[in-house]
Amino acid sequence: MTRFSFHRVPRFLALAAVLLLAASAFAEEGMWTLDNPPLKQLKDKFGFEPTPQWLEHIRLASVRVGDGGSGSFISPDGLVLTNHHVALGQLQKVSTPQKNYVADGFYALTPAEEMACPDLELNVLYSMENVTDRVLKAVKPGLTPKQALDAQKAEMAKIEKESLAKTGLRSDVVPLYSGGEYWLYRYKKYTEVKLVFAPEQQIAFYGGDPDNFTYPRYDLDMAVFRAYENGKPAKVAHYLKWSAKGAADGEPVFVSGHPGSTNRRMIMAQLFFQRDFSYPSRLAALKRRLEVCRAYAARGPEQARQAASQIFGLENSLKVMTGEYEGLKNPQLMEKKARDEKEFRSLIDSRPELKQALGDSFEAIAAAIEKLKSRQNELSYRNLPCPNLGRMALQIVRLVAEIKKPDGQRLEGFHDSQLDSLKFRLFSPAPVYPGLEEALGIDTVKQTVEKLGPQDPFVKAVLEFAETPEGAVKALLAGTKLADPNVRKSLVAGGEKAVAASTDPFIVLALKVDPILREMIKWQEDNIESFTRPAGEKIGQALFAVYGKSLYPDATFTLRLTYGAVKGYPMNGTLAPSKTTFYGLYDRAVSFDDKPPFNLPKRYLEGGDKLDLSTPLNFVCTLDIIGGNSGSPVINRNGELVGLVFDGNIESLVGRFIYDETANRCVAVHSAAMIEALKKLYGAENLAKEILGEK
Amino acid sequence: MTRFSFHRVPRFLALAAVLLLAASAFAEEGMWTLDNPPLKQLKDKFGFEPTPQWLEHIRLASVRVGDGGSGSFISPDGLVLTNHHVALGQLQKVSTPQKNYVADGFYALTPAEEMACPDLELNVLYSMENVTDRVLKAVKPGLTPKQALDAQKAEMAKIEKESLAKTGLRSDVVPLYSGGEYWLYRYKKYTEVKLVFAPEQQIAFYGGDPDNFTYPRYDLDMAVFRAYENGKPAKVAHYLKWSAKGAADGEPVFVSGHPGSTNRRMIMAQLFFQRDFSYPSRLAALKRRLEVCRAYAARGPEQARQAASQIFGLENSLKVMTGEYEGLKNPQLMEKKARDEKEFRSLIDSRPELKQALGDSFEAIAAAIEKLKSRQNELSYRNLPCPNLGRMALQIVRLVAEIKKPDGQRLEGFHDSQLDSLKFRLFSPAPVYPGLEEALGIDTVKQTVEKLGPQDPFVKAVLEFAETPEGAVKALLAGTKLADPNVRKSLVAGGEKAVAASTDPFIVLALKVDPILREMIKWQEDNIESFTRPAGEKIGQALFAVYGKSLYPDATFTLRLTYGAVKGYPMNGTLAPSKTTFYGLYDRAVSFDDKPPFNLPKRYLEGGDKLDLSTPLNFVCTLDIIGGNSGSPVINRNGELVGLVFDGNIESLVGRFIYDETANRCVAVHSAAMIEALKKLYGAENLAKEILGEK
Repeated sequence: MTRFSFHRVPRFLALAAVLLLAASAFAEEGMWTLDNPPLKQLKDKFGFEPTPQWLEHIRLASVRVGDGGSGSFISPDGLVLTNHHVALGQLQKVSTPQKNYVADGFYALTPAEEMACPDLELNVLYSMENVTDRVLKAVKPGLTPKQALDAQKAEMAKIEKESLAKTGLRSDVVPLYSGGEYWLYRYKKYTEVKLVFAPEQQIAFYGGDPDNFTYPRYDLDMAVFRAYENGKPAKVAHYLKWSAKGAADGEPVFVSGHPGSTNRRMIMAQLFFQRDFSYPSRLAALKRRLEVCRAYAARGPEQARQAASQIFGLENSLKVMTGEYEGLKNPQLMEKKARDEKEFRSLIDSRPELKQALGDSFEAIAAAIEKLKSRQNELSYRNLPCPNLGRMALQIVRLVAEIKKPDGQRLEGFHDSQLDSLKFRLFSPAPVYPGLEEALGIDTVKQTVEKLGPQDPFVKAVLEFAETPEGAVKALLAGTKLADPNVRKSLVAGGEKAVAASTDPFIVLALKVDPILREMIKWQEDNIESFTRPAGEKIGQALFAVYGKSLYPDATFTLRLTYGAVKGYPMNGTLAPSKTTFYGLYDRAVSFDDKPPFNLPKRYLEGGDKLDLSTPLNFVCTLDIIGGNSGSPVINRNGELVGLVFDGNIESLVGRFIYDETANRCVAVHSAAMIEALKKLYGAENLAKEILGEK
Repeated sequence: MTRFSFHRVPRFLALAAVLLLAASAFAEEGMWTLDNPPLKQLKDKFGFEPTPQWLEHIRLASVRVGDGGSGSFISPDGLVLTNHHVALGQLQKVSTPQKNYVADGFYALTPAEEMACPDLELNVLYSMENVTDRVLKAVKPGLTPKQALDAQKAEMAKIEKESLAKTGLRSDVVPLYSGGEYWLYRYKKYTEVKLVFAPEQQIAFYGGDPDNFTYPRYDLDMAVFRAYENGKPAKVAHYLKWSAKGAADGEPVFVSGHPGSTNRRMIMAQLFFQRDFSYPSRLAALKRRLEVCRAYAARGPEQARQAASQIFGLENSLKVMTGEYEGLKNPQLMEKKARDEKEFRSLIDSRPELKQALGDSFEAIAAAIEKLKSRQNELSYRNLPCPNLGRMALQIVRLVAEIKKPDGQRLEGFHDSQLDSLKFRLFSPAPVYPGLEEALGIDTVKQTVEKLGPQDPFVKAVLEFAETPEGAVKALLAGTKLADPNVRKSLVAGGEKAVAASTDPFIVLALKVDPILREMIKWQEDNIESFTRPAGEKIGQALFAVYGKSLYPDATFTLRLTYGAVKGYPMNGTLAPSKTTFYGLYDRAVSFDDKPPFNLPKRYLEGGDKLDLSTPLNFVCTLDIIGGNSGSPVINRNGELVGLVFDGNIESLVGRFIYDETANRCVAVHSAAMIEALKKLYGAENLAKEILGEK
């Protein structure tokens, strides 16, 4: 799964959601926050009682990678292990038409050869603090819903700012349990990161889109970075020791990583909206975008190289969302969900004090959804053309305006505590490909026109540059200098004045449409969020009253601990084994006559007899993960790394809405395979030794 | 799939059925009789126009093996290739507690070492003659339904008898197209058959019950026999040449074999009966029988050896029927079937002459089913205890009685043309295991008592031997001598008098219950078959009127030609390749830590490096097959053998009712794998050379 595979739920869909799983339904399920680890389950299931030190060690060895992946420290000198597909964006950015590190891989034989990444940020969760009381108390009696929402947001921004000032650590206030709790998470941040090792994409992503999200699998989906501080390898006290033999069939294992988002607590009204409105239109848009990218890639090898990571991400999302959508269309799943909701509500109804506190929260969410439908098209399709240039122009325009406001009144994404990360990406030296921007930009404008018609003010603003979508995008691209990071920096440095004076067409366009987009944000706050957030909080509180903290919150791209066991599953009429081997990799390649995407890199075709083919390559376990967990370490009881999460199986996709242990499996690279390949195929003895702690 | 995997539909279910597939729906579908090969489809799809000589050659090289399998001649000296699982019964019968050929395999290094099979019959289809007119004209105007049925049956027996007398060939009248046509099939018969080669069951049936009916697959499910005539290897003019390289991905291929039975022409009333009555009770009975066998096998290694082929067959049937039952419960399948039926009936309704001819045939079948339900329990559960001894006792009792009647008035199975085969099995020297007979016998009686109650006359007859099921079965077994084939022979030789005088408890019991069972047969003829057979004929005739012979008849364990291509399919979220390799075999073994049923025979564990692991092992093709096809050759355009059918994938099980090319696949052993294993692992150079025509 790609690092972007946890869908950022578009703002207008970010309705608070409700936890509806009966506690009794728990199998090896749950993405647990580190303040509330599933100690009882671990003891009951595995007789394992992790100490606070064990938990702290795991937490501090876990790394959040970029804005959608996970990883872990694996040496005292800052080596970070994650997936190739998490590293893909960076590999693409450091590649050139002459040297394609995505296709060919990379290995730094010496520290001097380690290659700087343009804009990769690593975060380590240093501390967690419950700030629920502060956030809830910010809402004084007598406020209107919108005033209450504003007051809460201001308080959250204040907490973050105070924390940043006090500790220097990245500080995020995280709503959990549908707003049933708010926590302040503080991160140590590494922005000086170098690439140490990446294999060929063809072996990292062996089997391509067809094999993606399936198992049995044969992927060496790994990449190794090194975190630096002040120009030197970072010294880290907490890193995972390597288990060369990995985990046995049936052995308990753990994952510590950053699941992006789940929707397990959605109420039926929300699930119906997802099934009947949201997924159909999002799937259609994805398919359309993918077609554009494929057509662009078909123009030539250089275009194919440029579009590769986009295509990878889109195919990945399409496969994920198709699986999720199938789940939503599965009547049994929906019936289970409806039963759970009914059960929960009748439990509430039987306790008058809870019933009164809950009020009409369910109805309020349903009503907000109905309101949402009235503007769904505008909310979905008013998108700035050109994925990088359009985004950056809008960020610049907003940044210079927001920065002048008190922190608590700013747009989400522009709080003081968020600015470093924003600028790190905005000023990234990574290349922008004009051809790809153009192709995608033209299609975006065409889609906007089709969906909203020529009279829509957003459409009008775009078509002021030329009468046709093609003309408008070409005009935008012809005149812009935003691809140069220095131009972006100087615009930001010049503030509102410089931006207002800019004649860069993307800036001109962003200035023109920003008010239109801000009106939509405000409309959503006034009409949707002001109602759904308190409704969600009330439902979250009712849940606590009924189930206590025997529940885990929906995923929020924050650190979670998951537990389970190495275990095969019933598949395709037979059994899937708990692991695969290099034998299987060669079987699949020969079985498909070495045709893409089942072809092997040259190194593997020629070096097969160097490998012990019986070495385990991938394995599956009953760990409850989702997109964002990519790159997470799989850990044994001793806190050793036994594997590297890189995917879920096809049966796991419905996990966005419901976890079913029968066949939901996490797919990981086996620790033995990584060492075997590094030593025998890549000449990376040094790296293998460092990982194994032998030097 | 096992050779018994085409379910012998119990008599009471043998309702005539209706072909409902629109001709336009044809993909690479169809089990075509050799008189009506799909010439147009072959030309359109593959540009291939087989000559009459090609078709004759294939027909005469094809062998029907025993009473449930297929095979082919592969050398001029009578070598016959079939599946290990088709040979399993014979392997079991020649094994002893000291020498287990099932587990260890067998190879005759020299002709002298070839091992005689106790009761294996091979049939080769020598000629086919359309006798529809004769059979239909036997029904004179004015007969009652029962008289008409008797007249038809008598005519069929007469045709068979005349043919046998005239040609000396086994002669069967075969109803096709629900009785739309009747054909006289004449077979050359070989009963002198020796075993030449069989591998270890563990590699023939690698992956055991879990992998059965699935793919990707890694089975060397082969066995080689030699047909003899007059003590010498049979000289055969028609045999298949061997293609050492097999078939490529996408290449057109053919299968010539003996599909056992399909129910593609069942009308909705029949499908509902199958879904709601027949399958649930048959599945329950199967599971029960399997439990008994497993408990018996658990008593010790010798018991496990004795019960192995029973367990194999039951697990196999259970998996098949579960897949079929899932199909029947699939609403989409049933809707498709209902649509087809509606379309067919409205086509008929639009043509008054067809409508009149069809009359109330659909309603007659539905009414017969309702009548059937009234006696379903008696028909299902009045079974003689002990699978071998009970069957043989009843056959003896009936044989001596039937043989005195004119051929046309005998029970089915006792016509002159059928007697040789009947006696061949009845007098077989194969061992009877008393312990297994007892365990199964006790359970049979218990089930009969449970379902029919103590007052049922059949139950009373059994419990006259002792008050309890255990007691009765033990008494039967204690007193019987029927396990000795000479005892059976002398009873038959002594005729009705000897049988009437016999004090063998099984004979006594069979004499007592035979009238009860004959009453049921008569009731069915009077109330069911007399109505469903003419109804089926009328529907068959209506089908001809609408579609002509662009249709193929349901399978009847007679020779059929099937066409298709080597082709993978969408599976489990990704693609299944069109072939597997020895690499994959080793992958699966290591993946399951070499645990049964995924363990490898010693020869493979130790000899892996002798093999070229990239040799194709199994492959799949879009050939429309079903149980009974096991052992069929897969043939290329040149008439060469490229593979050996041994299974269908899990998606093919629904093929009993409907063929869907998307994922329905025939699974075959690759020709290259057989030669590779014979040469490199089994020291069977001689056999390999004979197969390859090199000596």
